[in-house]
Amino acid sequence: MTPEVLTKLLTDIRDGNVSVEHGIEQLRDFPFWDLGHTKFDVHRPLRNGFPEVVYGEGKTPEQISDIFSALEKGGNILATRVSLEKATQVQSVCPEARYNTLGRTLTLVKEPIHFQEGEIAIVTAGTSDLPVAEEARATCEMLGSRATVISDVGVAGLHRLLNHLPMLRKARVIIVVAGMEGALASVIGGLVAQPIVAVPTSVGYGASLSGLSALLGMLTSCASGVTVVNIDNGFGAACAACKINNLCGDSARS
Amino acid sequence: MTPEVLTKLLTDIRDGNVSVEHGIEQLRDFPFWDLGHTKFDVHRPLRNGFPEVVYGEGKTPEQISDIFSALEKGGNILATRVSLEKATQVQSVCPEARYNTLGRTLTLVKEPIHFQEGEIAIVTAGTSDLPVAEEARATCEMLGSRATVISDVGVAGLHRLLNHLPMLRKARVIIVVAGMEGALASVIGGLVAQPIVAVPTSVGYGASLSGLSALLGMLTSCASGVTVVNIDNGFGAACAACKINNLCGDSARS
Amino acid sequence: MTPEVLTKLLTDIRDGNVSVEHGIEQLRDFPFWDLGHTKFDVHRPLRNGFPEVVYGEGKTPEQISDIFSALEKGGNILATRVSLEKATQVQSVCPEARYNTLGRTLTLVKEPIHFQEGEIAIVTAGTSDLPVAEEARATCEMLGSRATVISDVGVAGLHRLLNHLPMLRKARVIIVVAGMEGALASVIGGLVAQPIVAVPTSVGYGASLSGLSALLGMLTSCASGVTVVNIDNGFGAACAACKINNLCGDSARS
Amino acid sequence: MTPEVLTKLLTDIRDGNVSVEHGIEQLRDFPFWDLGHTKFDVHRPLRNGFPEVVYGEGKTPEQISDIFSALEKGGNILATRVSLEKATQVQSVCPEARYNTLGRTLTLVKEPIHFQEGEIAIVTAGTSDLPVAEEARATCEMLGSRATVISDVGVAGLHRLLNHLPMLRKARVIIVVAGMEGALASVIGGLVAQPIVAVPTSVGYGASLSGLSALLGMLTSCASGVTVVNIDNGFGAACAACKINNLCGDSARS
Amino acid sequence: MTPEVLTKLLTDIRDGNVSVEHGIEQLRDFPFWDLGHTKFDVHRPLRNGFPEVVYGEGKTPEQISDIFSALEKGGNILATRVSLEKATQVQSVCPEARYNTLGRTLTLVKEPIHFQEGEIAIVTAGTSDLPVAEEARATCEMLGSRATVISDVGVAGLHRLLNHLPMLRKARVIIVVAGMEGALASVIGGLVAQPIVAVPTSVGYGASLSGLSALLGMLTSCASGVTVVNIDNGFGAACAACKINNLCGDSARS
Amino acid sequence: MTPEVLTKLLTDIRDGNVSVEHGIEQLRDFPFWDLGHTKFDVHRPLRNGFPEVVYGEGKTPEQISDIFSALEKGGNILATRVSLEKATQVQSVCPEARYNTLGRTLTLVKEPIHFQEGEIAIVTAGTSDLPVAEEARATCEMLGSRATVISDVGVAGLHRLLNHLPMLRKARVIIVVAGMEGALASVIGGLVAQPIVAVPTSVGYGASLSGLSALLGMLTSCASGVTVVNIDNGFGAACAACKINNLCGDSARS
Amino acid sequence: MTPEVLTKLLTDIRDGNVSVEHGIEQLRDFPFWDLGHTKFDVHRPLRNGFPEVVYGEGKTPEQISDIFSALEKGGNILATRVSLEKATQVQSVCPEARYNTLGRTLTLVKEPIHFQEGEIAIVTAGTSDLPVAEEARATCEMLGSRATVISDVGVAGLHRLLNHLPMLRKARVIIVVAGMEGALASVIGGLVAQPIVAVPTSVGYGASLSGLSALLGMLTSCASGVTVVNIDNGFGAACAACKINNLCGDSARS
Amino acid sequence: MTPEVLTKLLTDIRDGNVSVEHGIEQLRDFPFWDLGHTKFDVHRPLRNGFPEVVYGEGKTPEQISDIFSALEKGGNILATRVSLEKATQVQSVCPEARYNTLGRTLTLVKEPIHFQEGEIAIVTAGTSDLPVAEEARATCEMLGSRATVISDVGVAGLHRLLNHLPMLRKARVIIVVAGMEGALASVIGGLVAQPIVAVPTSVGYGASLSGLSALLGMLTSCASGVTVVNIDNGFGAACAACKINNLCGDSARS
Repeated sequence: MTPEVLTKLLTDIRDGNVSVEHGIEQLRDFPFWDLGHTKFDVHRPLRNGFPEVVYGEGKTPEQISDIFSALEKGGNILATRVSLEKATQVQSVCPEARYNTLGRTLTLVKEPIHFQEGEIAIVTAGTSDLPVAEEARATCEMLGSRATVISDVGVAGLHRLLNHLPMLRKARVIIVVAGMEGALASVIGGLVAQPIVAVPTSVGYGASLSGLSALLGMLTSCASGVTVVNIDNGFGAACAACKINNLCGDSARS
Repeated sequence: MTPEVLTKLLTDIRDGNVSVEHGIEQLRDFPFWDLGHTKFDVHRPLRNGFPEVVYGEGKTPEQISDIFSALEKGGNILATRVSLEKATQVQSVCPEARYNTLGRTLTLVKEPIHFQEGEIAIVTAGTSDLPVAEEARATCEMLGSRATVISDVGVAGLHRLLNHLPMLRKARVIIVVAGMEGALASVIGGLVAQPIVAVPTSVGYGASLSGLSALLGMLTSCASGVTVVNIDNGFGAACAACKINNLCGDSARS
Repeated sequence: MTPEVLTKLLTDIRDGNVSVEHGIEQLRDFPFWDLGHTKFDVHRPLRNGFPEVVYGEGKTPEQISDIFSALEKGGNILATRVSLEKATQVQSVCPEARYNTLGRTLTLVKEPIHFQEGEIAIVTAGTSDLPVAEEARATCEMLGSRATVISDVGVAGLHRLLNHLPMLRKARVIIVVAGMEGALASVIGGLVAQPIVAVPTSVGYGASLSGLSALLGMLTSCASGVTVVNIDNGFGAACAACKINNLCGDSARS
Repeated sequence: MTPEVLTKLLTDIRDGNVSVEHGIEQLRDFPFWDLGHTKFDVHRPLRNGFPEVVYGEGKTPEQISDIFSALEKGGNILATRVSLEKATQVQSVCPEARYNTLGRTLTLVKEPIHFQEGEIAIVTAGTSDLPVAEEARATCEMLGSRATVISDVGVAGLHRLLNHLPMLRKARVIIVVAGMEGALASVIGGLVAQPIVAVPTSVGYGASLSGLSALLGMLTSCASGVTVVNIDNGFGAACAACKINNLCGDSARS
Repeated sequence: MTPEVLTKLLTDIRDGNVSVEHGIEQLRDFPFWDLGHTKFDVHRPLRNGFPEVVYGEGKTPEQISDIFSALEKGGNILATRVSLEKATQVQSVCPEARYNTLGRTLTLVKEPIHFQEGEIAIVTAGTSDLPVAEEARATCEMLGSRATVISDVGVAGLHRLLNHLPMLRKARVIIVVAGMEGALASVIGGLVAQPIVAVPTSVGYGASLSGLSALLGMLTSCASGVTVVNIDNGFGAACAACKINNLCGDSARS
Repeated sequence: MTPEVLTKLLTDIRDGNVSVEHGIEQLRDFPFWDLGHTKFDVHRPLRNGFPEVVYGEGKTPEQISDIFSALEKGGNILATRVSLEKATQVQSVCPEARYNTLGRTLTLVKEPIHFQEGEIAIVTAGTSDLPVAEEARATCEMLGSRATVISDVGVAGLHRLLNHLPMLRKARVIIVVAGMEGALASVIGGLVAQPIVAVPTSVGYGASLSGLSALLGMLTSCASGVTVVNIDNGFGAACAACKINNLCGDSARS
Repeated sequence: MTPEVLTKLLTDIRDGNVSVEHGIEQLRDFPFWDLGHTKFDVHRPLRNGFPEVVYGEGKTPEQISDIFSALEKGGNILATRVSLEKATQVQSVCPEARYNTLGRTLTLVKEPIHFQEGEIAIVTAGTSDLPVAEEARATCEMLGSRATVISDVGVAGLHRLLNHLPMLRKARVIIVVAGMEGALASVIGGLVAQPIVAVPTSVGYGASLSGLSALLGMLTSCASGVTVVNIDNGFGAACAACKINNLCGDSARS
Repeated sequence: MTPEVLTKLLTDIRDGNVSVEHGIEQLRDFPFWDLGHTKFDVHRPLRNGFPEVVYGEGKTPEQISDIFSALEKGGNILATRVSLEKATQVQSVCPEARYNTLGRTLTLVKEPIHFQEGEIAIVTAGTSDLPVAEEARATCEMLGSRATVISDVGVAGLHRLLNHLPMLRKARVIIVVAGMEGALASVIGGLVAQPIVAVPTSVGYGASLSGLSALLGMLTSCASGVTVVNIDNGFGAACAACKINNLCGDSARS
């Protein structure tokens, strides 16, 4: 209920077009999240060509197809954690959907995406971290931020990382994707001034504890200003990075 | 070594003012982090009136006093995790230092701080989370971002939180400080569009596992875009939040 | 051994119909759980049309079929954690058994269930929590309590939850089913006065630790009066909720 | 904002006593948690002579004294986890406050407590569990439920427990307080039909892991219908038990 | 209620000396754990001069003194985990009580202890494990088994252990007390044929995790037939060892 | 090298039949574990018809077959953790081998087993614990102790357990096999005086943590004298129980 | 960039053969890790016939084949964690590659390996630890150190280990591979003076926690001088052992 | 028993100077660890001026003083984990003992230490890691290896570390001491070819889990060849490093 609608309702009451009783009835269902300037505005994340987001894990191909079909009329959609099998089934129903084999995302773009100016750099420690990085990259793109993946620059070969410093320095936000000990976040955190979102991955074995060691390492990073998301959560890191990028974009426009 | 210095050196070699051997000698100590446009620029975080940061835990009052005294000539300094006893001893040597009893920070400001335009909101679930929130607030101030603490708006009394929504909506970045189950980060994450930095606290007992439960809860938050720092790490959350705020400030100026 | 049987035995001894030796022999096997007013009464949970309960995990279809067939003469039966394959095999033997695909329960109702007056509300944070919720709902029904499932009202979209508040307020007991950070229990616990039984689910990945994070979050809930059952234990939550509901029903009748 | 107030406002608008603009202004601050029949009613838990609750841990004696003094005009107050030292200081300011040394509660009763009919039984495995049990008992009393503590009936001496069965059978709700392996909850859960709220305690050493073993044991109890609260959380168990007891009391009155 | 008493009761009923109603009344309180040959016999562990056992941790000196004074008339008593301060206070009231400074046991022997024939060997890895070993030794003595402590024969100096093999071979049961990695249990388990009760100790730091590493090491011992008790539980190990020793003693006598 | 062999060697040296140099050579390889009365006697566990033991997990059918074939000439053999597939392959080579489907043991008996007099009782909490119990039973039999399995007497139905008390009282050693919270060990430990070996099982889900909760519960048992082996380690429990039983048998014979 | 190349560049600038601008351009890409005597020398580990190393887990057969084919021109290659299926596919493309079924390594040797003088002993506790030991052995060989595997000498049969002492004493470095409780490292550490690298393996079940118990046991070893690598990390242990062996080799040559 | 002694004994037997019976008697106590070339040689670690080592934690000042006094006649001694209070007491008895306040070691040198040629570099991430580094340094010195501490070169300020590379390259072994995420070991491991012994420290808070996060990070290091010791175990790291250094020294001499 927008201020305009509310004004109209109250004017109708004043003018006798709407009875007090009917007014109460309508206000009873007054969407509480839309109270003038303090409105909740939960729809904002979905405005401006932002995609509908579907977590594909544990959903059947039919359920995913239904959601994709419902979007036919417009809007974009991003499904994460979609297996190749599910994607193929969905594509048989919705041939426009595009599947990202590495990042396991399935996307449908019906409305053009307006990209922010700033770029996001996604850095991985090893090639095994690429699926998580690719999920992040695909998410960034759907949320309107351009992102570049720089892979295999783990701290055991420091020169590879240092070679990429100029590119890192140009990004607005940096997503660091690393398994095993997750040291890459600390090292990059000590080299650049930008916000860093660290994603631990479940890459590794034994004492890597399915990503817990990388998670703990990133949380206790000696580099201040590193923040962390859940293990393998490339999507979440991209959301956080895009929120930061959008924030700047907003102020840049004003 | 700036490009200018390098040009000067090479020109001197070409002109015979400097021998090849001497040139090699100088380049041998060539600061590797200053290679033209790819320079490391590790000092950038410390420019613009940014403070020197001291982690007070495990340092003796003498060590802290030495650092504070060394700054006498200029610059600002922020010491975190300083006990009242230590602070009192440092202040006897360096009377200008100001102690924040709640946040346990000791600060010395010799150069005026230039504040960013954007504000940071710091929200706590309970009053017991206030020390961590205050450490974050004091850090934000020293890093050049204004911050406001909104306390005791935990999810068990949702109306208190909702009352503060307008203020939260005006902040550029939101720091959520919560112990126990840490649910506050998820709830705020679902209500606002800004980047959220969540700080789990060690408040609680038993199954709160000294903050691990809040940490895990925040990492697995169902609200996308929430990032997390270490338990009780108000300082780290403030660093991350200020990096985001600074980023916007930079683009705002350009 | 009921008081009547005991009276009969002692009278027979007094009247010489039963020898003292034979009396001792019978009393030796005196069921110790039936000592007048202090009897154990372990059968009470199974009275009044309550079902026989079978934990299907790790049982063969043959074992489950045997139990179902044994009930042919009467009584009801609830089997939980039954896979579709097992259910199909059991149904080929016992065609009256009904399978709940989502909740994975297999039930046989030979005696009419007498329902309590009060209702139980089962709330889930996400659609992935539905199997656990459905197990709880099916259990409630077999135990004589009507239950309604309200799904996908997680805290990241608070307005969806608040829309359902009136329905929640009418329930006698509320079961909250949530994975990831489990914050839903705290939020509902702050909004309603009824007893809340929280069920953490293993939905999630990485730091959700197969449900442990939700479990810890619910245990450390800042909302007082929330109690918790094992991860994914929809059956146990329903048992607890029905015990509460029955208790009220009992006093309502008196 | 009650329906009456809303009717008055809308009538004033209709009658021209209030302008549309002013109406919008008032509705903007419309307390969203009071929308006719769907109002949040967060105050309900505090009605009917229910106490204000203070978590004493980490609060200074001054803070606690302030809260107690504020209640001078009426109402009751329950402070938990108050050390003897703090209690003494508060009592010097507020001499009416009564301290429970064992349960570490400090209470002030200015309004008579109306007790429910049903009773709550609190059972402990060992004498070391008594402080938690006493916290639960004192909480029950302040919340309007009578409670009796039956102590030292751990499963290693089963006969002691069985002797108390008649008393347990008469209670409406049973709180089981046990450390070490927490087996008491399972055993009682198999003997009675009432709802059971289990409180693991941190009593024990080594593999008891500060109460985690008891917690895990209770969560995986083979007795269905046992629910669990946080370690040492006598207060929370009492809240849950009283909510259940109140529920029955409510229906009994209607 | 012994068989004799039961016979008497039934005879009285038969003879009309006791009415049927009175007989029911008496049988209602029939101690259920004394049903002829199947009686529970919970007192057996306390027969034959066995001590009363008190867990001193968390008990006040007054409480311990009370228990010791109550035994004045006869019987023996063993209190474990008694600090020097508490012991001194108890001894001021009960001067006959003897304190074991190393094992922290306080004992009172009023009835002579009859010792079993077999001996128990208690082996420690290091001198820091001695307090736990001494608690075990003192417990064994009070339970009627002679025990010898062989200390500081950890696996890092294998020759020291091998020198003691003849003594180990003569014991009926061996208690192995070890912290750190707990390897001693495996090594001894591979050298002797007797039952081994392993006690992990909290000796160590860092990755010894307060005894958890030793505990896990002993549980996964490659030597079959090693059983384990809780960390630092010298008392429990002695109980188990004495039960085994008693068992043999019993058959030896028959 | 037996004392006889040593005497012979030294006598030969004295008599000049063996040179000093040759004597040194032989003594250099002097089996150090056979030094007169202090000999290691590692073979003792394998004497008296005791079986060769094979841990089948991770061994190929060929490897197991080889071991079974090697025993053709005599001796007994017990292989644990053998899958049905492996067993079938081994039996095609060694048809005398008998497979225990429930306990997953494969055995070959070429020499008659001499059984001890005492019996071992194996008690399980639920039917799902039966495979572990059966592994224990089969192991006991191969090690020369008769064992009886009493299943499904978990503490949630205490009367079932109490019915079996007479049988439990007759056993020399009791093995308790239980998953979930593992409370059965504590309850039995409080009812009988015999040594109890507790085996936690991985039966359960969620907070049962693959048997860790049962393990912790048993380790922190409030019943003194309970010892514990690794999760699902029916074989290890049987080894410990048989060592105890053998010990008594030995003294009984002397 | 070697000193020679730098001298040439500066001389060219001096002589006017290279312009200052071009000199800056070249120095801009000056490999920062090659600054005269302080050069990083990251290539050193790959010199002297050292192999290229590939972690096969998670790589496709095509990716591995590509790497092997790229080496056609020379150099050696070691791929670890290669399944039989992958190896077969790679061998179809690169028939010279040799597969080690037990250690799961795939190797290609085009340049002769120069072996160090010293030998490495690899000791395993059980036969199930052999795959990890074999990975270590194959790695040692490719890195230029001869290694011998001594298997199945776990501490439960100490005499087997002691028989191999002479061989262990001759090795320069000892790798100890053990699962379950990992006690073997402590025992060997107490017997020999050489550096010991311990590898915990995931062999075991239940409380072995997939190798964590062995890891913790080795870390808390009572034998000083034992160092540890990740669970199942035979490759890493071999790298460490070869680095030590090489170090000695280097000094031996000088 | 040396070969010479054995030859003498056998010769005496041959010559009739010693009876066969007496020979057996002597050989019965034949020190089994001294069997010609296969002797255990447990004393070797203590030869060549190596110190006696005392773990001071949990020892009384009296116990430590006794050990120091016993050495009066000669030899060196190193006591670790000695508090200032204890050290002072020991020094009052043994004034020659020197206390290292930072490393908490107490040493007594009566015999000159012969130092190896190679040096050991000890690198710390932060100044808080210095006590552990100093314990390592003091241990190295007592074991005969010179060691230098390079402190505060954590990965968040990479340039500080790189400045020290030349010094690191000259060391034979490098000990890396780091808390928090422990990333320093990985980074150095990627830069140098020497063996690296990593020591996690308990420096940090929250998710650093008292050093467990650093431990896990070091174990899962992406740099091959890093080995790890227990948390805060500077002594153990020094032992391992010195063993490596000694090994080279031996070969250097030959």
